[in-house]
Amino acid sequence: MIRVNENYSKIKPTYLFAEIAHRVAARQKASPDAKIIRLGIGDVTEPLAPSVVEAMHRAVDDEGGRENFHGYGPEQGYAFLREKIADVDFARCGIDIKADEILVSDGAKCDCGNIQELFAADTKIAVGDPVYPVYVDTNVMAGRLDIELLPCIAENGFVPRPEGCRADVVYLCYPNNPTGAVATKAQLQEWVDWANAGKRLLIFDAAYEAFIRTPGIPHSIYECEGARTCAIEMRSYSKTAGFTGIRCGYTVVPEDLAAYDGAGNPVALKPMWTRRQTTKFNGASYITQRGAEAVYSERGIAETRATIDFYLGNAKLIREAFEKFGYKVAGGVDSPYVWVDVKGDSWAFFDRMLVEANVVTTPGAGFGKAGEGYARISAFNSRENVIEALDRFGKVL
Amino acid sequence: MIRVNENYSKIKPTYLFAEIAHRVAARQKASPDAKIIRLGIGDVTEPLAPSVVEAMHRAVDDEGGRENFHGYGPEQGYAFLREKIADVDFARCGIDIKADEILVSDGAKCDCGNIQELFAADTKIAVGDPVYPVYVDTNVMAGRLDIELLPCIAENGFVPRPEGCRADVVYLCYPNNPTGAVATKAQLQEWVDWANAGKRLLIFDAAYEAFIRTPGIPHSIYECEGARTCAIEMRSYSKTAGFTGIRCGYTVVPEDLAAYDGAGNPVALKPMWTRRQTTKFNGASYITQRGAEAVYSERGIAETRATIDFYLGNAKLIREAFEKFGYKVAGGVDSPYVWVDVKGDSWAFFDRMLVEANVVTTPGAGFGKAGEGYARISAFNSRENVIEALDRFGKVL
Repeated sequence: MIRVNENYSKIKPTYLFAEIAHRVAARQKASPDAKIIRLGIGDVTEPLAPSVVEAMHRAVDDEGGRENFHGYGPEQGYAFLREKIADVDFARCGIDIKADEILVSDGAKCDCGNIQELFAADTKIAVGDPVYPVYVDTNVMAGRLDIELLPCIAENGFVPRPEGCRADVVYLCYPNNPTGAVATKAQLQEWVDWANAGKRLLIFDAAYEAFIRTPGIPHSIYECEGARTCAIEMRSYSKTAGFTGIRCGYTVVPEDLAAYDGAGNPVALKPMWTRRQTTKFNGASYITQRGAEAVYSERGIAETRATIDFYLGNAKLIREAFEKFGYKVAGGVDSPYVWVDVKGDSWAFFDRMLVEANVVTTPGAGFGKAGEGYARISAFNSRENVIEALDRFGKVL
Repeated sequence: MIRVNENYSKIKPTYLFAEIAHRVAARQKASPDAKIIRLGIGDVTEPLAPSVVEAMHRAVDDEGGRENFHGYGPEQGYAFLREKIADVDFARCGIDIKADEILVSDGAKCDCGNIQELFAADTKIAVGDPVYPVYVDTNVMAGRLDIELLPCIAENGFVPRPEGCRADVVYLCYPNNPTGAVATKAQLQEWVDWANAGKRLLIFDAAYEAFIRTPGIPHSIYECEGARTCAIEMRSYSKTAGFTGIRCGYTVVPEDLAAYDGAGNPVALKPMWTRRQTTKFNGASYITQRGAEAVYSERGIAETRATIDFYLGNAKLIREAFEKFGYKVAGGVDSPYVWVDVKGDSWAFFDRMLVEANVVTTPGAGFGKAGEGYARISAFNSRENVIEALDRFGKVL
């Protein structure tokens, strides 16, 4: 008799964004003429950079001819892309990461979800609270039910400290989803030192690093001394270059990084992750990788930066509007997310904004217990829609 | 202390195609002028169909503008593609599979590798021998070390029978990789009846179904009565439409399909697979899915069929040549692979053909113990290269 992995029944049955979609559909049905503005799910709205579009057209033509046809590529990603990443994202920032420590994938969500396969079943996991649900759900699916929650609250500036943390593996995400908070170098260094001291591992999700504008805020965990021996970093083109529909990201696993077998012997993690990817993944689309390569061209850098500046302009408007309305806000400076203390129940605020303002937000409680009382407002929309939404908020609040 | 999943150390350290690549590189280095022809790895060589190229150009333009921009899509795949699949691949063949039983992915390798996550850790697995290594390795990585091997040998026409099989889950692949053999409807029906009788599950890999030309050979496991309650089917555009570099496939999980919890209660598998995909995957690229959609247009069907006919022409030449050389061959009729009994050691034949003929084959032993004594010769190459390779084989053999 075929038996199921019963851990699947231990995750919450409704995924946050599915519940939101359900309520939004109900609202639209009840009020068919309402022009609903979505500042909820963190999906980009601006088109791809022209340099990326041109590169992908060329790649499509490559695939349509015999001369430059590309079939199976290396599961780790093409060297043309990995070398650009190593140069622009790391070497030019003074960070020591080599091209062959970078594995390209079809997105950071997959990598964040799959990385836990490398760890022993009884590995103790810690995550921030509130948190991007993928870190938690993928560990629960693997039977790791007892996940330590590190409160990210106004009192600690939404950055937890390692003191007292009992986990072997800690997921950190800065700039943070959902709070929009950033971590200083000193704060990250404290985590790195703690991890190295106890042979622990950090999984650093830097999906939003391109939104950092404040000097001194680290873009990479590897800006901290010693991170090469205790940290994996994940990045994504989804928000950096509007690739949410194109699907590309990458994971950095330094050569120096090891975990341990049952006898306490070190086992290098890069070969393990490589084995995982070569066995269960067949590389990101060639067209996608050519598009990602173009993000690193001079034009690509300028164009994608301009788009992020545009979103940051939206975030500033949202932040300032809610401050004017008399709310405490976090995030929205080096992040597309503004985290608003709604002075009450998260879902009640969500429902009220949906019905009275026809604006979709994301209830903070959907990201964890410590998110109760907050709303995440996303800057991913047109300027016109953001201004209209803020105007409607102003009338309601 | 962070501990590793020690099951990773229990898989064979060298992946078959990596070893082949290593030996080919050594040969090329030793003999820099040799024009090596690759009939080894099963990668396509013909360009994409013009209708697919046009559709992907349109999709790239969609992503470059605000009006038709697509960000995150449904993790299960766009309805525009799922509905085409349900119509062309199933309804028109008289098979009852609905669009919402189809989940689109970035390739069958991922789906084949990930599907085992749904099953209890102690699930008993059976695979053919020889076999596509992904079925085995992904189960070993999950701790299922004791995998039952079902010999696929000349004596049973390379199709095992269920009698005596002790597994809960059986992976079947027809047309088969690596043997090129096909299964008759009666043979598959026997497996379906066996699975239903014992509450067992079949995972049917139909990646090569588009190569079937012999009337009566089933293209889908769902042509068998009762398969909706015992089988998952996987398909791929890699070989069907030359998508090895584009990355798209799909998995069918019928609504009626259930496994069981520890108390023996049925648990539907479609919601579990949906949960797996929505949690750990973010959908295939929009551009890729538009390309796959075009495969189902009238032109797309004709163009992709012509390309497969071309590869089948190569297969026929390979098959006939080896018969002429006095070898027993299987496959190569409804499959791009010809399975040659090399009358001796697999790797010795591989090395001899590499050195004496400068042709890369795949040693049957790389696919499992029962593949020893065989070579897999792939029809994926230009006509010119195939003819040249056969000419060189003729001089050596």
